[in-house]
Parts: sequence; structure tokens; C-alpha cells
Amino acid sequence: MNIAVLGSGVVGRSLSSKLIERGHDVVIGTRDVDELLARPEVAGGWVAPFSEWYRNNDSVDLATFSEAAERGEIIFNATAGGGTLDALKLAGEDNLDGKILVDISNPLDFSHGMPPTLFVCNTESLAEQIQQAFPGARVVKTLNTLTASLMVDPASLAGGDHHVFVSSDDGDAKERVVQLLKNDFGWKEVIDLGDLKTARAAEMLLPMWLALINALGTPTFNFKVVR
Amino acid sequence: MNIAVLGSGVVGRSLSSKLIERGHDVVIGTRDVDELLARPEVAGGWVAPFSEWYRNNDSVDLATFSEAAERGEIIFNATAGGGTLDALKLAGEDNLDGKILVDISNPLDFSHGMPPTLFVCNTESLAEQIQQAFPGARVVKTLNTLTASLMVDPASLAGGDHHVFVSSDDGDAKERVVQLLKNDFGWKEVIDLGDLKTARAAEMLLPMWLALINALGTPTFNFKVVR
Repeated sequence: MNIAVLGSGVVGRSLSSKLIERGHDVVIGTRDVDELLARPEVAGGWVAPFSEWYRNNDSVDLATFSEAAERGEIIFNATAGGGTLDALKLAGEDNLDGKILVDISNPLDFSHGMPPTLFVCNTESLAEQIQQAFPGARVVKTLNTLTASLMVDPASLAGGDHHVFVSSDDGDAKERVVQLLKNDFGWKEVIDLGDLKTARAAEMLLPMWLALINALGTPTFNFKVVR
Repeated sequence: MNIAVLGSGVVGRSLSSKLIERGHDVVIGTRDVDELLARPEVAGGWVAPFSEWYRNNDSVDLATFSEAAERGEIIFNATAGGGTLDALKLAGEDNLDGKILVDISNPLDFSHGMPPTLFVCNTESLAEQIQQAFPGARVVKTLNTLTASLMVDPASLAGGDHHVFVSSDDGDAKERVVQLLKNDFGWKEVIDLGDLKTARAAEMLLPMWLALINALGTPTFNFKVVR
């Protein structure tokens, strides 16, 4: 399948590598391809330059947000939450229309220091803002509650005995994403929270996720709903 | 030990029964003892009248918020979040001074329908509001992220293989509460999130907890941090 991944950070790279490995055609969308390839490093050095990753993952295509979104049958939003709505505007409403838009972003606000707060929560979510701004897109919220390496390889932690959540107003889109999560990424169980309003719950899990990174000293953990 | 439990709902009752069973002296604090004993039912009938529960738990003492807080060496706040600060004012600042105040409340706002939103979150928490209003109290946030029956009997679910969180600015108070959770309630592992600001994370877990009740059709579940 032709899959577009918007965002070139750790999440976008992890998704792209895995989707290529699974036989999909993947195009990463970014604001400025030349600038991205020339960028020396990301986030103060703890993330390798994109160009370095790209040399080892040259089956992945690289294009503008708009071209990537046009080509993708399914579109992953792996942009930083603060830039998501702008990135999607650049992707273009027409290119999102009728497509499944898998939203992995989190509305993190770093402007007040660490840990970040959320720039939208409680009575709204970033996923709902995306759906409202692009009513023709079939927005499915998922994968925003765990670290990138585990998103695409849940079995690497406790044999995959933990959970990911999914929220959408579009039942068919949601089911297709659940199948992709299971078949391509290896998720054993995806918990369907309900409609897109429940993305508030998934996004509001972020403060706990951040507190646990600090408390446990690692991002390599995930939630299991024991029942 | 003399323990005060502020609040006569399901959480207060579960805590009190268990603490009595464990050999503690327990006094439930309420706004108006006579009114509570005369109240026919709670929450539209799905919670038994307090008087009925009390007949089967007559080792528990019953007193005003103020008298209960005065007698308690440790005080559990099991009042509804919306009434917590008022209840603690009635308990009296002097009666909280220097005491461990275990805060189990959640800032649930039911005024906009179901599911409830939070009346404070993201940049503050109810636990921090309590600490600010009663600076002499040693506030420890815990147990607010799961259903009452599991708070005091974690082993009844998956042999206790799941987690509860704890947050406080007072390291000694936190450690004493952790010991109580382990020794009296049977918790195997309590995850120390850090200072009281991390109570934001625990309180912001509530939307996920509520969404999961809806998705799973039961409140009898809990989170395990798999790592």
C-alpha cells in the first residue's frame, strides 16, 4: 500500500522503517526536503541527523507534505503536536479528503519548561481539532501513548503483553487501522476507546507517560490494562 | 493506629472496612452525622444507604469532619473532588497540621454531563490546591486511579500484578504511605512518581480510566506499567 508518513523525527522514522520492512511503499513528507537533508542534527544531538538515517533507509521516498499526502492512501501524522495543524494545511485539504489519517501527535507545550504541559486537553483534543479542520479526513487516534520503538515492535517488550488504544468517529477507518497495527506492527490487542472524543483520554495520558519516564529512567515501558 | 477517613461514599467505606480488618481504629468524618444516617440512598440507588453499610461495620466510628480529623493520626481524603476543599476547611487547618493527608480525590466536574471533565488539570492539580490551602498538612496523592474495591484488595485482580502511583513533596510521609499500602492493603509495587506536581499526571489519568470503564464495561481493571 502507498503510505505517507508526515514528520521526519524519531516516530516518523520508526514507522517508515517498519512499513518498508512490511512491504509497503512509504513516502515521508516534510516541509522542505533540501533543508531536512542538510540539517545537521535534531534536538541538541540526541537524535541522529535525518540524512544519516536516510542513507540506511533509502527505500523510503522523501517529498513535501503536499506531495506525500497526495500519494498516500493512508497518512500517518507523526509531526510534533505544536506544528501539526500547520503541517496538515501544507499537506492540503484535498490530499487528505477521504483518506485515513492516523494521528500519533501529542499537544505538547514546551514553552513553560519541562515537563511539557498540554496546549489542548480536558474539553478538547488535538485529534478533534484536526478532524474539525479537515472534516473530509478519516481521523484515527492511536500510538501516541508510547515510545516510538515500541509502537512498531510491541513484542520487544514482555512479548507484547501490553496495550495500545484507538479512537475514531469512523468505525471502518478504525477497524482498518486496528488491522494494520496487528498485522504490520504485531499488536496483540488494541483497545477501542470509542469515538474521537476519547482521544482526550489518550492525549491526557501524556503527563503520566512523562512522569514515568522520569521515575523509571527509561521510555521503554508501556501500559497494560489488567482485567 | 488512629485513622480518619473523610467521606462516606464507596471509597470511604472500602478504606474503612479494610483498615478495621487490619486492626486500626477508624473514624469516618462527615458533614452531618445525623443527616448521613438518615439519608435513604446515594447516587440514584446504585450505592446502598450508609446506614445499611454502617450496621455491618459498627466497629467504625462516625463523627464530624472536624472531630474525625482531630482524632486521626493519618487522614484519608475520600471526599468527592468538588467538595474536597470545603470538607477540609470543615476538618480544620489545626487538625490537619503535621498530619499525613492521603488524598484519593479526583477533580471531576459533572456539570457538563458524562463523562465528567476535570475542574483543574494540566498546570495544576487538586492535590497541589490542597497542599497550598493547608501548608501544614503532609499531602500524599495516591489510589485515585482505580476502583475502590481494588484499592484495598489489589490481589483480587491478577494476583496484584498491577500498579498504584504515589506523589508527595514530603519524602517521609510518602514512604509511610507506601508502607501502609503494602502492609495493610497488599500492594506489591507502588510507583513513586516524585513530587506533588506529579499528582497532575495521576489525576489526568481519570479520563482514560473513565473511557476504559465505558469500553470494557467494568471498573474492575487497573493499569500495569510493563517494563
